[in-house]
Amino acid sequence: MLVNGKNIKTVWMEGATVYMIEQNLLPFEFKIIPLHLYTETCHAIKTMIVRGAGAIGVSAGFAMAQAIIEAPELGREAFIEKAKKEIEATRPTAYNLFYAVNYVFHESGGNKDKAVTAAQWLAQKDADDSKKIGEFGSTLIKEGFSIATHCNAGWLAFTDYGTALSPIYMAKRQGKNMFVYVDETRPRGQGARLTAWELQNEQIPFAIIPDNAGAYYMSQGKIDLMIVGADRIAANGDTANKIGTFEKAIIAHTFGIPFYVAAPSSTFDSQCKSGQDIIIEERDQNEVLYQTGIDENHISHTILVAAPGAKALNPAFDVTPASYITGFITEKGIINATPEAISHFLRTAI
Amino acid sequence: MLVNGKNIKTVWMEGATVYMIEQNLLPFEFKIIPLHLYTETCHAIKTMIVRGAGAIGVSAGFAMAQAIIEAPELGREAFIEKAKKEIEATRPTAYNLFYAVNYVFHESGGNKDKAVTAAQWLAQKDADDSKKIGEFGSTLIKEGFSIATHCNAGWLAFTDYGTALSPIYMAKRQGKNMFVYVDETRPRGQGARLTAWELQNEQIPFAIIPDNAGAYYMSQGKIDLMIVGADRIAANGDTANKIGTFEKAIIAHTFGIPFYVAAPSSTFDSQCKSGQDIIIEERDQNEVLYQTGIDENHISHTILVAAPGAKALNPAFDVTPASYITGFITEKGIINATPEAISHFLRTAI
Repeated sequence: MLVNGKNIKTVWMEGATVYMIEQNLLPFEFKIIPLHLYTETCHAIKTMIVRGAGAIGVSAGFAMAQAIIEAPELGREAFIEKAKKEIEATRPTAYNLFYAVNYVFHESGGNKDKAVTAAQWLAQKDADDSKKIGEFGSTLIKEGFSIATHCNAGWLAFTDYGTALSPIYMAKRQGKNMFVYVDETRPRGQGARLTAWELQNEQIPFAIIPDNAGAYYMSQGKIDLMIVGADRIAANGDTANKIGTFEKAIIAHTFGIPFYVAAPSSTFDSQCKSGQDIIIEERDQNEVLYQTGIDENHISHTILVAAPGAKALNPAFDVTPASYITGFITEKGIINATPEAISHFLRTAI
Repeated sequence: MLVNGKNIKTVWMEGATVYMIEQNLLPFEFKIIPLHLYTETCHAIKTMIVRGAGAIGVSAGFAMAQAIIEAPELGREAFIEKAKKEIEATRPTAYNLFYAVNYVFHESGGNKDKAVTAAQWLAQKDADDSKKIGEFGSTLIKEGFSIATHCNAGWLAFTDYGTALSPIYMAKRQGKNMFVYVDETRPRGQGARLTAWELQNEQIPFAIIPDNAGAYYMSQGKIDLMIVGADRIAANGDTANKIGTFEKAIIAHTFGIPFYVAAPSSTFDSQCKSGQDIIIEERDQNEVLYQTGIDENHISHTILVAAPGAKALNPAFDVTPASYITGFITEKGIINATPEAISHFLRTAI
């Protein structure tokens, strides 16, 4: 997608170096960083320099390829196995991460060139799938629709296009007028920071709303459709996504608003029977207690926004039961949130 | 309630001067400010130096008394009428404000001493009612309960004790152990800042949670009871309160968690038939886009936490339909959220 008129991907690999947008600096600063070692790429995933289901997966695939390149002749297998575990430990809830790491691991058989080819193929597939999700999803968007979204499942969360925002980008290219209600998405504010930044660059009208305002706008009939992304989808359709997704799904259900999850097949985990099997990552309480931003002189500060000494809880994800999901927008089409539809989709998708 | 071992009220009047806690400085600094003129008190209400249904009402009553004291002999009635309108315009959603202003206006008949007596009576009644709400509400709290609350309806929102937190304070005095889930309450963070500060002072165990985490904790059976305050309650039980209350009520309803609204009779507006008649205050978008807090050197900063140039919407309240409310905890007892129960309560309460 375009940044200041230049076509940019979220993450890519040249030779043995991974390049990515430093997303912790967004929306205030746009910077590309190089990562020369797999441990640097691991650190970038862990500290959310790169975030979002697809981009995490692609980065993890690149990290796996880097590890295979770096592995010494002596103790090669042990090095690669250890690296694989380290990469997998960076973000335990993201299924794409495991998918990508295992794909590169198994496809390469430890061969450096094959590892790079496999990782690059995953990156290209991520962009292609995102584009197809946009094409299918755009059919749900009618002229003049107001669409709500949570967190950032835009192109920054993938290598290109994104998932939840991809249908909006495609509908824009089809000439449809839309308005987007962007959930701020506390505690990290990915909606206010990243989704808002993406929509601004695409010149799509939007407003940031506090996460608390969802029921207010939905109850007034101001929202026609809600689309969110996913970090992991169980075989029965239960969906792990950014904390607050479950709450929005219940509210949408209450007011009869269609609630779609946009995700590529790599997000579906057929080994995971239901949401109960999904591990929820508990992140540092300081993400809730502190906020980072810029002052009027463009100087960055991290400030305490809670009572000094107070404790906080910070579950990063929640699981929305399939019964609250109208359907999944995938790269193969829109499917129902039922075990049968998912099973059929997974058999034909890969 | 106690602050650093000293008994303090949120707002009080000595002579013609109103004193109040500067709540915009909390939880980082504790400061009492004097307000010598009714226009200063109006400004304090408008800028949320004082906030919360009860405290706004008491402050508005004091402001009305100040205006009656300040009114010149020439054009006395016009001055008082104009002041009344100015006070009423400060926070349009808060019913207690209109109640208090009209009470002082009518009881005093323009007499200075009577105005002060009426305003002081309202302040005392606010504290007394809050204490009674706590006594009735504490009967809902069993040993070991986890209780969720939204925004700040503690003593800082009233003159003493509060409403939603008063039952928790009383249960603590009864020796019950509890844990409180404190909604951060974006955009202004009254939960993270004020409720957390109050609970710390009372040494009640709690954790701040992002507003997005409500469904996550409720779905896991971790919350036994939710108690919130109210800014205005219609004759049919529809309740205006801080934005996000409606969302929490729907979630609580979904998981069968009792959802109580704690409020004194002055919050009930028998002239307001239903929630549709309640005006929702839309506040400045900068409350969403910017955050104020302190850095590690205790220096205050206001920082941008969203994409530069992005717009935001900031409805300050929402209206929870009576059907989502288990009951009202009032100074006369716990009543059902039905027009009949409310009508009976209002006939006997005043």
